[in-house]
Amino acid sequence: MSSLDIFTGETIGTAVLILLGGGVCAAVTLKSSKARNAGWLAITFGWGFAVLTGAYISAPLSGAHLNPAVTLGLAIEGGTEWSDVPLYVGSQLLGAVIGAALVWVTYMGQFHAHLTDPEIVRAQTGHEGMVDKAAAPAAGPVLGVFSTGPEIRNVAQNMATEIIATAVLVLAILTQGLNGDGDGLGVLGVMATSFVVVGLGLSLGGPTGYAINPARDLGPRIAHALLPLPNKGGSDWGYAWIPVAGPLIGAALAGGLYKIAFV
Amino acid sequence: MSSLDIFTGETIGTAVLILLGGGVCAAVTLKSSKARNAGWLAITFGWGFAVLTGAYISAPLSGAHLNPAVTLGLAIEGGTEWSDVPLYVGSQLLGAVIGAALVWVTYMGQFHAHLTDPEIVRAQTGHEGMVDKAAAPAAGPVLGVFSTGPEIRNVAQNMATEIIATAVLVLAILTQGLNGDGDGLGVLGVMATSFVVVGLGLSLGGPTGYAINPARDLGPRIAHALLPLPNKGGSDWGYAWIPVAGPLIGAALAGGLYKIAFV
Amino acid sequence: MSSLDIFTGETIGTAVLILLGGGVCAAVTLKSSKARNAGWLAITFGWGFAVLTGAYISAPLSGAHLNPAVTLGLAIEGGTEWSDVPLYVGSQLLGAVIGAALVWVTYMGQFHAHLTDPEIVRAQTGHEGMVDKAAAPAAGPVLGVFSTGPEIRNVAQNMATEIIATAVLVLAILTQGLNGDGDGLGVLGVMATSFVVVGLGLSLGGPTGYAINPARDLGPRIAHALLPLPNKGGSDWGYAWIPVAGPLIGAALAGGLYKIAFV
Amino acid sequence: MSSLDIFTGETIGTAVLILLGGGVCAAVTLKSSKARNAGWLAITFGWGFAVLTGAYISAPLSGAHLNPAVTLGLAIEGGTEWSDVPLYVGSQLLGAVIGAALVWVTYMGQFHAHLTDPEIVRAQTGHEGMVDKAAAPAAGPVLGVFSTGPEIRNVAQNMATEIIATAVLVLAILTQGLNGDGDGLGVLGVMATSFVVVGLGLSLGGPTGYAINPARDLGPRIAHALLPLPNKGGSDWGYAWIPVAGPLIGAALAGGLYKIAFV
Repeated sequence: MSSLDIFTGETIGTAVLILLGGGVCAAVTLKSSKARNAGWLAITFGWGFAVLTGAYISAPLSGAHLNPAVTLGLAIEGGTEWSDVPLYVGSQLLGAVIGAALVWVTYMGQFHAHLTDPEIVRAQTGHEGMVDKAAAPAAGPVLGVFSTGPEIRNVAQNMATEIIATAVLVLAILTQGLNGDGDGLGVLGVMATSFVVVGLGLSLGGPTGYAINPARDLGPRIAHALLPLPNKGGSDWGYAWIPVAGPLIGAALAGGLYKIAFV
Repeated sequence: MSSLDIFTGETIGTAVLILLGGGVCAAVTLKSSKARNAGWLAITFGWGFAVLTGAYISAPLSGAHLNPAVTLGLAIEGGTEWSDVPLYVGSQLLGAVIGAALVWVTYMGQFHAHLTDPEIVRAQTGHEGMVDKAAAPAAGPVLGVFSTGPEIRNVAQNMATEIIATAVLVLAILTQGLNGDGDGLGVLGVMATSFVVVGLGLSLGGPTGYAINPARDLGPRIAHALLPLPNKGGSDWGYAWIPVAGPLIGAALAGGLYKIAFV
Repeated sequence: MSSLDIFTGETIGTAVLILLGGGVCAAVTLKSSKARNAGWLAITFGWGFAVLTGAYISAPLSGAHLNPAVTLGLAIEGGTEWSDVPLYVGSQLLGAVIGAALVWVTYMGQFHAHLTDPEIVRAQTGHEGMVDKAAAPAAGPVLGVFSTGPEIRNVAQNMATEIIATAVLVLAILTQGLNGDGDGLGVLGVMATSFVVVGLGLSLGGPTGYAINPARDLGPRIAHALLPLPNKGGSDWGYAWIPVAGPLIGAALAGGLYKIAFV
Repeated sequence: MSSLDIFTGETIGTAVLILLGGGVCAAVTLKSSKARNAGWLAITFGWGFAVLTGAYISAPLSGAHLNPAVTLGLAIEGGTEWSDVPLYVGSQLLGAVIGAALVWVTYMGQFHAHLTDPEIVRAQTGHEGMVDKAAAPAAGPVLGVFSTGPEIRNVAQNMATEIIATAVLVLAILTQGLNGDGDGLGVLGVMATSFVVVGLGLSLGGPTGYAINPARDLGPRIAHALLPLPNKGGSDWGYAWIPVAGPLIGAALAGGLYKIAFV
């Protein structure tokens, strides 16, 4: 795997992941979207098939990590060189910013209609919105389309949730190679992982919105800070370290557990 | 692959695609349907499994393009001869018209009940309906069962949405051959593509209803214009070029990106 | 394949199909069910995974037809001996009656609570219920848990809907053998067929409730007539021939089309 | 398969199963969860993908039973040594308690918010709650996040429902080895089983909440009794034997039927 393949695969794959993942959040949230209020099941299947699509496209180039926590887990396991980690993570972050910008292009009219509707903006900043009530003082009314935020803001619980959910994800990816689907990157492996992600969203997404991926949260948050959205409000930087640190700790725990118990 | 196989496969496959895809739109929209108001998730899974069914049936004959944008992408990549493109596209368009007519046969009583209910017709043309509010001056009250339409009518954004969504679709189809599922036409490839289509609907369908396929939009629009539906209203021909041009541009971009980055 | 294997496989497999398929109708319909009002998507996925479960169990014994229309299609195609057809169909019908009786056992308390609630019974026979409004004069208030019925009672349209939907199903099953999944009975084939059935329900189930299988409709209707349910009302025998004749005609058309166009 | 592998695989796998399965119940039930009221389809897909994730992780170590009923069925069939059964079952129960404790960690703030909301607690103990109305005198207001309970409390029907549903599950697992997916533990087998579990929930979950697994019910019930939840109410020990005995009887019936009819 050449450095160019890693860069290309991870940048394109993560851009597709965030385009579709952020896209489903825009679709169910924003005014004048045909999918508005389609519900939590739509969000979780949307993110799962975002993983499927991004991984399917990038698997032949870079192995489809698309997530610094996955890269860390694979580096601990030995399948990825530690020297490749910075290139993986940098490409993932770049792809995530690009993906979030593409969501903005795709839903431009919907963002404008939503953010200039006085009733919507008032309701959300006044703690009545659906997306991120507890975060309202810090978070703008469409931040939930970009990044995650907790329903109940509590560092210990929020960290625990992200650590546990990411540990399950990384453990499922590490054990893939043991499951008889060859090199773990075939269509079946991608499909199984996407269902794992749907499951993690359904089951463990309730408290924090399941970042389980530092690039998935940080890249779109940077995009939210940079994009010229009217009345967009704050980017809630006070929370931003949790969906970075939690997933990395979870991945390290999964990597250690894998080395102790599975090989 | 003989010309007859291409013609038969693409005509039957696209007819099945549109029968099931238009069918789910009829099912959730029309009065006296058991599935009325089943929601966006039903629509997106309905279209995804429409692709699965049409592709599964036609794959052994024609390779299951079912979409001029896919044919264009494969011609750029080299898997399809340029000289076969007109036959592919013509068969797809014919199949799409047939499929839309079969939707009409299947839901005939529902169409009639819906279009002769004074309250429904008034509500939809009066900009209160669910299907296509912004398009209401141009679009009849059941056009959304046949063709796509934007929630917010804006050429630049509508084009951008269709270009981006189709580029992701075509990129996923082009990379299939690299993913270890043989010739890219096996059951697994069909299944993965159908989940990609569910994902595209959930994530990028909000603004325009995700044509991502010129035949899928134009064929049923022609059927809408021809079929003897009472009070059917206009076919919104002013919008018709966008779901043709957008997907073709997206496919060309995906084909170019594939040739630069993946091979 | 011995006669005993065909008998055992088709009886058990169809019993499981109807237990789960009728089960999901009971689950979303009956009073005091945790799944009440879970919606059309639940019904269609429930039937799809009913097919998956019944077919998965019976495939190694009998090839998992579970449907006289499928048996007819395979006999036309040549994969099934005409002399085995009566045994297949008889076993399927027996299994369907058993499956419907098992639904009654599983949901016994819910049936009783539902059928002895004066408000529910009055509403449904008074044309207000969800299950089968147009059929209300002929159909009892829980017949929809057992058999299908049209929303709009029209012989021509109801027949057309069942013919078209079954033709798609049988065509997808006949082309399975061409799709590179070996003998068409592997796990992948079962999974693909179950998604086709979900899709047929979502897309073409709106007018008649998609019998697409004579045994699926007739077996449970017989069970409805025999079971000691209080206030159960009529079994709507006037409609019973349509979900038998329609699917058989559709299967014959699909078999003919397959022989002309695919081989 | 060493004893250590069985212990590790079943403990980790069942912990993941219950973490995700209990997690989805917490997600749709508890106050201040983003997934609150996401509905029955979310619960059933959540449990299905919980099985997928737990089985995928533990398959290479222990064969992914994760369920004493499955272990019993496989012991009857002959694939599992009777002498290994106690280790399997003990590990599954340990894993289930750990998984339920992890749900509590993940949703700690949501449990507290829910259980200290006077309106919620009053409504549920006053027979108005969604989770387990008929069980209300015995069951605390969040017991449904941990264990199953009947909508209508009737020993005969509740037993019958659990027996029938578990017999279908175990039969599908036993026939896996006959279905051409090798040793029955590959990715495809895991995926098919998870869809069977989604189907069982949709179709047969209405009356009792489908334990179909003694460890899945008893382990979390023990956790409910031990965890320091405020106002948690009773653990409904009077019902606890049914989701243990029913699934074991169902598994024995399936094992016997398998030996008579399938081999």
